Amino acid sequence: MVVGDLDPLLHERVRLGILVLLVQHGELDFQSLKRLLGVTDGNLAQHLRALEEGGGIEVQKTFLRRRPRTTYRLTPEGEQRFAAYIRSLRTLLGSFLE
Amino acid sequence: MVVGDLDPLLHERVRLGILVLLVQHGELDFQSLKRLLGVTDGNLAQHLRALEEGGGIEVQKTFLRRRPRTTYRLTPEGEQRFAAYIRSLRTLLGSFLE
Repeated sequence: MVVGDLDPLLHERVRLGILVLLVQHGELDFQSLKRLLGVTDGNLAQHLRALEEGGGIEVQKTFLRRRPRTTYRLTPEGEQRFAAYIRSLRTLLGSFLE
Repeated sequence: MVVGDLDPLLHERVRLGILVLLVQHGELDFQSLKRLLGVTDGNLAQHLRALEEGGGIEVQKTFLRRRPRTTYRLTPEGEQRFAAYIRSLRTLLGSFLE
């Protein structure tokens, strides 16, 4: 059985939510992620840090109308790991998902 | 977004493996679960205890050729929660799973 194939960095509820949103939106800032996920600042910051340290996402600092803006997006590694996670989940849960 | 809908009791890799196996096999003993999941005694025992205390599985003590045999199976609540978990996962991951 393939439970060990489920990437432990990704197999956490809030992190999974972050990844789904970043795949869908390309990039998002902290407040948007917080609003869309409905989590606290501390909780979100903790999981963003874990994903960044694990190489799954990267932080981008830009300016929007002269104001600093911090956004998050997937790294190429993060994209690959998310795709691999989905494959493992489908292998594990197989027919239950159909 | 529905990350909070993913049942925290079930959203753990080994526990997910246990549930899938119990749905597929009806009931299994400790050694079979250990072999099929490829986990250590301590790790398996810890997650079986969590699932039992959470009301998802129940322990059954029977005799097989005069030898005591302990098996695990889903409770009706466990079956419902597993089905709800799958629904939440499909809502969260949607098109990625197709």
